[in-house]
Amino acid sequence: MLTPLSQIAEALRSARSVAIAAHVRPDGDAVGSVMGLALSLQAAGKTVYALLEDGVPSNLTFLPEVATILTPPYADFEIDVAVALDTATHERLGEKTKAALARAPLLIDIDHHPANPGYGQLNHVDGVQPAVGQIVYELLKAGDFPLTDAVLQHLYTAIITDTGSFQFSSTTARTHEIVAEMLKAGLDTARLARLIYQTQPVRRLQLLRAMLNEMDIRSEGRIASWKFTRRLMDEVQVQSGDTEGLIDTLRMIDSVVAAVIFEEMPDGKIRVSSRSKDERLDVSAVCAQFGGGGHRMAAGARMRGPIEAATETFLTALEHEVRRLA
Amino acid sequence: MLTPLSQIAEALRSARSVAIAAHVRPDGDAVGSVMGLALSLQAAGKTVYALLEDGVPSNLTFLPEVATILTPPYADFEIDVAVALDTATHERLGEKTKAALARAPLLIDIDHHPANPGYGQLNHVDGVQPAVGQIVYELLKAGDFPLTDAVLQHLYTAIITDTGSFQFSSTTARTHEIVAEMLKAGLDTARLARLIYQTQPVRRLQLLRAMLNEMDIRSEGRIASWKFTRRLMDEVQVQSGDTEGLIDTLRMIDSVVAAVIFEEMPDGKIRVSSRSKDERLDVSAVCAQFGGGGHRMAAGARMRGPIEAATETFLTALEHEVRRLA
Ligand SMILES: [Mn+2]
Ligand SMILES: [Mn+2]
Repeated sequence: MLTPLSQIAEALRSARSVAIAAHVRPDGDAVGSVMGLALSLQAAGKTVYALLEDGVPSNLTFLPEVATILTPPYADFEIDVAVALDTATHERLGEKTKAALARAPLLIDIDHHPANPGYGQLNHVDGVQPAVGQIVYELLKAGDFPLTDAVLQHLYTAIITDTGSFQFSSTTARTHEIVAEMLKAGLDTARLARLIYQTQPVRRLQLLRAMLNEMDIRSEGRIASWKFTRRLMDEVQVQSGDTEGLIDTLRMIDSVVAAVIFEEMPDGKIRVSSRSKDERLDVSAVCAQFGGGGHRMAAGARMRGPIEAATETFLTALEHEVRRLA
Repeated sequence: MLTPLSQIAEALRSARSVAIAAHVRPDGDAVGSVMGLALSLQAAGKTVYALLEDGVPSNLTFLPEVATILTPPYADFEIDVAVALDTATHERLGEKTKAALARAPLLIDIDHHPANPGYGQLNHVDGVQPAVGQIVYELLKAGDFPLTDAVLQHLYTAIITDTGSFQFSSTTARTHEIVAEMLKAGLDTARLARLIYQTQPVRRLQLLRAMLNEMDIRSEGRIASWKFTRRLMDEVQVQSGDTEGLIDTLRMIDSVVAAVIFEEMPDGKIRVSSRSKDERLDVSAVCAQFGGGGHRMAAGARMRGPIEAATETFLTALEHEVRRLA
């Protein structure tokens, strides 16, 4: 499962045309690692296709060359090598993207989700790395591929977003060393941080305000939750990326051990996102009761609507677990 | 003004008892650099007094040994050397603290505010450093003073808070190299980040909610401001540190070029805090019209109440400047 990066670099070196993709509903690590690798291979003279089933979220459109990212339906291009990044299962690429990557005789799977089964012919799954952007950086160095400013912009974005601005416990000494190298190469990291974190559409603050006004706090302050309704989505005219990080604000409350957001989907299903702040509380076990899953500290599920009923059902199960803590 | 750190280390090495202080209304850099230096010198066998005119803000009480920090009235201790950290002017130490430091024949002034005139006998004012905590780290290395885990906790806190979690343009490659060294030394940086950023009293979210509900946006979205009233302070039972960073949320709005918070003080005065997001807009010039000052991008003033009148007067002057931009 840990094919050396030098061997993967070799395979990329000998490829002529490469398709690179990441998971549906892409985040900063997905977009940044795909485009970081794509722009470097392109600078190395290869024909490169960057594919994202759901396109680029609105909060990341400032990044270089993201307008070149392809979305379905895909044209009939031919490729020697396909690369899946930051995507824990083959299906999470999205149906059309998975099919497009299958045109290549070689699939390379590079990821940091420990549960990734290694669905490629070459697999580099390293659960210790905080971001796939960090793995791609090491890959490009191992293969002596170009680290242009645009490449570094993408890889920095991948790293800062997946480490929560270097705050998560996944952050390593090497993470900081890499950013030091990027700064020495002249990368304007402050500009990127400003565009990522300090440039929010008014919609974001409207959502945050609604959440703070409507949030439910129960179990002696240990559970904070919020129902994100379609009514509000329409009112605010929500775009992809707008809800990024909202749940972290709920989790911030000192007394809280579990934060949950219930989101009304277009199909009437309720998407549940949950976070734990106490190692002893396994939110994935609660989500599993409703057919979902994830990690101990971050998990999700999809439930049948209406949102009020789903919320009470889920919170009752969660309260049961939370009561066992103290 | 840039006495070498090796020479300052020498002076500290030969001291027997040292008093260390920082500015009134201390922030993470003030508390962290004072206690980082204090705990290291203490571990090196010196008698050390850490002084803060206003004590430790409520959001930083989790840091090691902060209960040993002295506040006025100060006892009659004797000292060989006094150190002022992160304090742009002698007066900003606070009256009592300035007097206590004056007992030493030698005052060392270490700071990163460019306007610091160098009011010590030894001065190390380096405006390029993102945090005095970073200078203290280099000082302790230069002098081979102990870098215990408690010392690193304080210096990391100083650095992460003064760099906005490594996002501000003041962050250097060396900043990241230092954090890499701290991680290699075994420091649990994620725990500290969690305690600093992800552990907020409900009061904080109540203030944020009030601000989002009450904020005023004018000049085609380019000015966002908020009146922080005594009524709300009493209602929420605000503590020191609770308002830290609130203005950054106003500044985040994409259209905003100037963010302002007007705060009712106990004496009836109005404390104005302003931030610019456009290099061409100098908020210190606007504050200067009301007897205040600061930097181009961050400045403040005190105005006569009532808050409504002060707000309109200030915003009218600010709007005048903002209109000149476009
Ligand atoms: Mn990732
Ligand atoms: Mn400072």
